[in-house]
Amino acid sequence: MTIVQTERAHRYEELASFVAGLVDKGTLRPGSRAPSLRRISRDRRASLSTALKAYQLLEDRGILEARPRSGYYVTRRPAASLDIPALSQPPGTPTSVAIAATVLNLVQYASDPRLVPLGCAVPSPELLAAGQLDRFLARAARIKGVDYNVYTAPKGDAALRQELCRRALRCGQGWSPEDVVVTCGCTEAVTLALKAVARPGDTIAIESPTYFGLLHVLEALGLKALEMPTDAEAGIDIAALAHALDQKSVAACLFSSSFNNPLGCTMPDAKKLEFLRLLTRHSVPLIEDDIYGDIFFGAERPKPFGALDPAANTIYCSSFSKTIAPGYRIGWLMAGRHTQTVLQQKLASTLATPALTQAALADLLSCGGYDSHLRRIRRVFADNIDRMTRAIEQSFPAGTRVSRPAGGFVLWVELPQPADTRVLFGEAVRRGICFAPGDAFSATGRYQHCLRLSCGYGWDRRIEAGVETIGALAVAQARQGAIHGQGS
Amino acid sequence: MTIVQTERAHRYEELASFVAGLVDKGTLRPGSRAPSLRRISRDRRASLSTALKAYQLLEDRGILEARPRSGYYVTRRPAASLDIPALSQPPGTPTSVAIAATVLNLVQYASDPRLVPLGCAVPSPELLAAGQLDRFLARAARIKGVDYNVYTAPKGDAALRQELCRRALRCGQGWSPEDVVVTCGCTEAVTLALKAVARPGDTIAIESPTYFGLLHVLEALGLKALEMPTDAEAGIDIAALAHALDQKSVAACLFSSSFNNPLGCTMPDAKKLEFLRLLTRHSVPLIEDDIYGDIFFGAERPKPFGALDPAANTIYCSSFSKTIAPGYRIGWLMAGRHTQTVLQQKLASTLATPALTQAALADLLSCGGYDSHLRRIRRVFADNIDRMTRAIEQSFPAGTRVSRPAGGFVLWVELPQPADTRVLFGEAVRRGICFAPGDAFSATGRYQHCLRLSCGYGWDRRIEAGVETIGALAVAQARQGAIHGQGS
Repeated sequence: MTIVQTERAHRYEELASFVAGLVDKGTLRPGSRAPSLRRISRDRRASLSTALKAYQLLEDRGILEARPRSGYYVTRRPAASLDIPALSQPPGTPTSVAIAATVLNLVQYASDPRLVPLGCAVPSPELLAAGQLDRFLARAARIKGVDYNVYTAPKGDAALRQELCRRALRCGQGWSPEDVVVTCGCTEAVTLALKAVARPGDTIAIESPTYFGLLHVLEALGLKALEMPTDAEAGIDIAALAHALDQKSVAACLFSSSFNNPLGCTMPDAKKLEFLRLLTRHSVPLIEDDIYGDIFFGAERPKPFGALDPAANTIYCSSFSKTIAPGYRIGWLMAGRHTQTVLQQKLASTLATPALTQAALADLLSCGGYDSHLRRIRRVFADNIDRMTRAIEQSFPAGTRVSRPAGGFVLWVELPQPADTRVLFGEAVRRGICFAPGDAFSATGRYQHCLRLSCGYGWDRRIEAGVETIGALAVAQARQGAIHGQGS
Repeated sequence: MTIVQTERAHRYEELASFVAGLVDKGTLRPGSRAPSLRRISRDRRASLSTALKAYQLLEDRGILEARPRSGYYVTRRPAASLDIPALSQPPGTPTSVAIAATVLNLVQYASDPRLVPLGCAVPSPELLAAGQLDRFLARAARIKGVDYNVYTAPKGDAALRQELCRRALRCGQGWSPEDVVVTCGCTEAVTLALKAVARPGDTIAIESPTYFGLLHVLEALGLKALEMPTDAEAGIDIAALAHALDQKSVAACLFSSSFNNPLGCTMPDAKKLEFLRLLTRHSVPLIEDDIYGDIFFGAERPKPFGALDPAANTIYCSSFSKTIAPGYRIGWLMAGRHTQTVLQQKLASTLATPALTQAALADLLSCGGYDSHLRRIRRVFADNIDRMTRAIEQSFPAGTRVSRPAGGFVLWVELPQPADTRVLFGEAVRRGICFAPGDAFSATGRYQHCLRLSCGYGWDRRIEAGVETIGALAVAQARQGAIHGQGS
């Protein structure tokens, strides 16, 4: 097998990015006609076929639409009728976390195949189409079995680390394979990163709401959570963080690089840089979790923090669980100055990562069309998000707010107060539907009126009916609340 | 594929155990003639062919030898000319552990394929012959890929847990699959077990010397090590432990069930029971590490602690790394009353264990001849241990002591004082040979005059020359020490 992918973006992708940028900036307005293929190919010195490929890509992404005998138009997105959630207002004091039982309970429901799968932030196996990866695994088992029946080097398979570096370079991360440590999924990566920079009892600043798995890791390591006000689009509030860093001892920040789970927020680059300067001033390291970064709906992949300022004290964590192979449990981290500490912790935690699965992934990345796979699932997830947003608009109570993520595959839904999504959860499970109740995303039991819906499964009538049922249950609960409110 | 193995031992295995028992008890003395096939088959109501298979098995195990036209004789083992190490005398006070850098350094040397592999306690891939397992993996990837591309249930693959219970039953462990949690190797199992019963700062009683990986886990969890005097044959000194439990607060004991690494010691059943009674009186849980249990050279597999008293507060940990697939990183634990806590910790540590590798192992256990594989490697390891012991006798300094393990594949060598195996290690590595220096096996820097040799590779001239070179270096060091001693 030979390497068939090039490091650089294809010419047509560059052209598509250029046009998408015009839409983003408002140079091309929704509903307006896009430059003709002939015009754009002349202006941008591209062949006609390159221009066509670029426009088809933009069509796939929902940015342009082709009208018969009329050319390409900028898509007129239906104005979202629901507000997005307001900036969160967590308490501002470090708290111990006690969420283990909640997480175990939720994970057990979320992995129950009998329930409509709106609970677990894992894509459906069909959608991930890991067939080629499985074939690489079968091949590795057949031809490399003996050689790989050893503990891999503590850092992981050399070929895989090489491929990870090649990909990181596209995001502007100039890593050496020696900087990379392969882990048993992103959970282990985050655990090792936290162990490298914090001791039990230390305080870690996190987004709020945040993925319950991160809260659980804090609990397991005896760390305190400092929940920061977080905007559903632009991420944490920097003024609030600056205030917290002035007032409190914070051992590290643990934030998502892009499309945070559950809000879907991503800091703009300028804000990321401002944020890094703030952390540098306070000598606070940043652990960035970029597990959703490759699932972007816009023209460009958001840049990780570390790519914007390589000198900053960051540890980058990610995995393949959201894009191709949750079952393989392969993650990695780039720990910079903390690499030796991370390696030592890895030895004491799982010793090494399984060998053949790493070899299969290395093969896939070097010659397996992983990028075209990513393009495909991005379209599907973006479409799922749109459809689910519309289903929420149609069936949830008036006043419901919903996030508007530019990547990933989860939606954060804020019901009008009073609402109790724990009660709603029990009712939904009895009807064969799973979702994630809001209080699982807070160390302080906030967000009881919120819930997270996963859009990781191909859209079908079962999913749609599931969303409608949750909406109807929420409407009923709101009505009952109103009656009770009147009676008391 | 169908299940071809039965739960119970074969008739010929029972008969072999019976005869081996006669040898153990001294009823049949070394060099004496064993009962004829005709006689034993009549006395034990077995067919002649069963008796023949039993004797062949005993021959394989080195317990009987066939002499042409004369029948079977009890093997006359060469009287070992070297003493075994004396009871260890560790300090008796709980100590913090700081061994991470040593372990990382050692692991990096031990996984260097250019060095003669006497350092790492991992069998050679050729010897493990995991070809059939790899074929099961290839098959699982081909036909189960899609179904298994999910996070497995937190406890692990149901079929694998079922098979683990079937095998545990043979050792007298009456587990339910619901009691079993599959992990990323035994290291994760021990980590989860310790987290379930101890908090940072707590004291854990351990054997001394003990596997550096366990010391490293204690360090990573912020636990203190209380090293107990340990006999090279019968394990820890119970009186010393009783004294320690009276004097100190001990959160848990972490001992091997059988063939401790590096001494190879195993407590006799009666001592195990006495030990469990002592722990029960003090309400101290036992974490037992049985990773070498299946590699026994005698007639019977040693019983795990939990099998001798199912009511005792034990957590059982093991893995497949020493017997078939270090590269697969699959371990498990049976945590009894601690199962829920362990599960919660597992979610925060690695979330789940990879799916397809679990499926492959389940298939191998249900229909893959794993037992005949185990029989084969037991013979090879026993043979390796014998040959290496002889090589040590021939090349090491007078007064060297060496362990005499009844299972596993490592030898513990105690050089006459003064000796510095750290210095020896540097010299050996320069000559292209790796071993494990003694101080890595202690939290208090003891055993600097000791070293561990791994017998996990098939015996050949390279291995033999490696042992001889270490011996010659040790002789030279002793001579130099004597000269320096005279000079000062």
